[in-house]
Amino acid sequence: MKRLVLAEGKSADTHYGKTMRGILRYAPETVVAILDSERAGETHEGFPVVGSVDDALSFDPDTATVGVATQGGRFPPAWIDILRSCIAKGLHVENGLHVFLSDDPELAELARRHGVELRDLRKPPPDLSTATGANLEVPAQIVLTVGSDCAIGKMTVSCELDAEARRRGLKSLLVPTGQTGMAIAGWGIAVDAVVSDFLAGAAEQLVIEGHERGGELLWVEGQGAILHPLYSGVTVGLLHGSVPHLYVLCHEAGRINMEVDEAKPYPIPPLRELIDLYEAIALPQRPAKVGAVALNTRELSEEDARAAIAATEAETGLPTDDPVRFGAAKLVDAVLARL
Amino acid sequence: MKRLVLAEGKSADTHYGKTMRGILRYAPETVVAILDSERAGETHEGFPVVGSVDDALSFDPDTATVGVATQGGRFPPAWIDILRSCIAKGLHVENGLHVFLSDDPELAELARRHGVELRDLRKPPPDLSTATGANLEVPAQIVLTVGSDCAIGKMTVSCELDAEARRRGLKSLLVPTGQTGMAIAGWGIAVDAVVSDFLAGAAEQLVIEGHERGGELLWVEGQGAILHPLYSGVTVGLLHGSVPHLYVLCHEAGRINMEVDEAKPYPIPPLRELIDLYEAIALPQRPAKVGAVALNTRELSEEDARAAIAATEAETGLPTDDPVRFGAAKLVDAVLARL
Repeated sequence: MKRLVLAEGKSADTHYGKTMRGILRYAPETVVAILDSERAGETHEGFPVVGSVDDALSFDPDTATVGVATQGGRFPPAWIDILRSCIAKGLHVENGLHVFLSDDPELAELARRHGVELRDLRKPPPDLSTATGANLEVPAQIVLTVGSDCAIGKMTVSCELDAEARRRGLKSLLVPTGQTGMAIAGWGIAVDAVVSDFLAGAAEQLVIEGHERGGELLWVEGQGAILHPLYSGVTVGLLHGSVPHLYVLCHEAGRINMEVDEAKPYPIPPLRELIDLYEAIALPQRPAKVGAVALNTRELSEEDARAAIAATEAETGLPTDDPVRFGAAKLVDAVLARL
Repeated sequence: MKRLVLAEGKSADTHYGKTMRGILRYAPETVVAILDSERAGETHEGFPVVGSVDDALSFDPDTATVGVATQGGRFPPAWIDILRSCIAKGLHVENGLHVFLSDDPELAELARRHGVELRDLRKPPPDLSTATGANLEVPAQIVLTVGSDCAIGKMTVSCELDAEARRRGLKSLLVPTGQTGMAIAGWGIAVDAVVSDFLAGAAEQLVIEGHERGGELLWVEGQGAILHPLYSGVTVGLLHGSVPHLYVLCHEAGRINMEVDEAKPYPIPPLRELIDLYEAIALPQRPAKVGAVALNTRELSEEDARAAIAATEAETGLPTDDPVRFGAAKLVDAVLARL
């Protein structure tokens, strides 16, 4: 795959650009250019930024991937023109937003005419149902990332810990539950797009498939946060359907409020309270503890980052590290010791 | 409305017949007959049971309501013949299952030919989005029923407490979140059929609409249970989107395991643990306590029921009663004292 990552107006955005960042970091071999007219001519992490689809053609992309997640997952109207251009230039379009391109009659007809596919990553598979309990029979160790907020690094941490475990020769596998993880790993279900009643059933199906794909150590990408006012239902349904043996709690150093609405602060509770709540809500059939804390320190100097990690270890009593910045060895050690 | 309630093979079932039971109890004026060929010729709670749609016609129904909830919400194949008959005889069909009749080309064409409507109660409204925080601004008192299990009486308790509050002259309103409540009240959203990401948004929309409909005391019908392995995501999304000021915990005396799968027991934890968990997971912006316990005692003698209520009061330290059996006054008193 040779991807043009669509990130119009948001390629530098640390919140809404998380799909793009995940692809650049964990599947960079698939990317040829980034589209963002506000930064045309620049480079971003070594990739050329172009201002239009026409300008991207010299990099010979075959697929345009929507790299930006908007709140609620709908398409801003301005994007439709960009998508039309991509299709008209013969690019497949890969889309992780809630609105399905394949449901748009005009885009679908345009795609048909130009012989390209509209791949809606969030379109749930048609055979979903409620959970059956087969999740508890999966002969694998299951580790779920949980968070103090959305967009705090749960997918990143799952990818980093999986990569480290694979480097150690373990039969380790990422279980993708969102559009970015799916774009990286090439399979998965976007659980937040599933009908609520089938949420745990979808999560169950994912851990079963993860084991069928050869995983004996499954890193399930968490979603949302248990006290997030918008997405907690997804968090808990995924938690109960994926039946983890252990959690890794993801937090960002210094983040005080959840990123919901600047006008209405939703404070993040103390980490110990969060840990207690995640542990209390584990199914009695599959008790799970938090085994380690992954601390996102991207906003801090290295010295401050090390101090923040030490402070979080003292606060939680749990091994803590920033696996992106300092490597995933310490957290993988902690997880393996507790499984 | 003159309803034929479709309950083929399950009119006497206490679990899967909960939609039928809710309609018979809280909207009996809408029912003319019940269809169940296994009990043709009998009466059920005063309503005639018929063996076929033809036999029902003498009662002059105008609408056939699917009265049975199947696990996962799909239609058993045998039902399709009954539905065809209803449509062919000119009845509108009201359906609360996950599978939408209006999506079935054959049934839709048949309905068009016979000039009847296929009303899919679980079809989510098209304008859903994520929650906005407007739920916290609704100037009403919000009471959510929560449970130790599914199918334990949350909708019934909401209906009973709402009716008692209205008898006292309060501007009280039921906020329906499932198909039975919707059939009773004539509005609502089946939140378990909503895409997971929009779950809290749907719940928010419901409490806003409840207030717009004149409710100053809103009884939100709860869904699922916080430790239910299949439906906990719905429970928590509804909880965070409806932002209750108070909970009423619903439990059935003597129920030890959740009704999930007889081969795999999912024990109900001690009620104090459940209460702590429901209280811990309330949003910090809208702390909520359990104000009372509604105890379903239908399986017990009156003496045993009173003993079970006393035991639950002692165990939980909370006012407890069976509002169906002994009236809702005590629970409404308890709720009003704590709001």
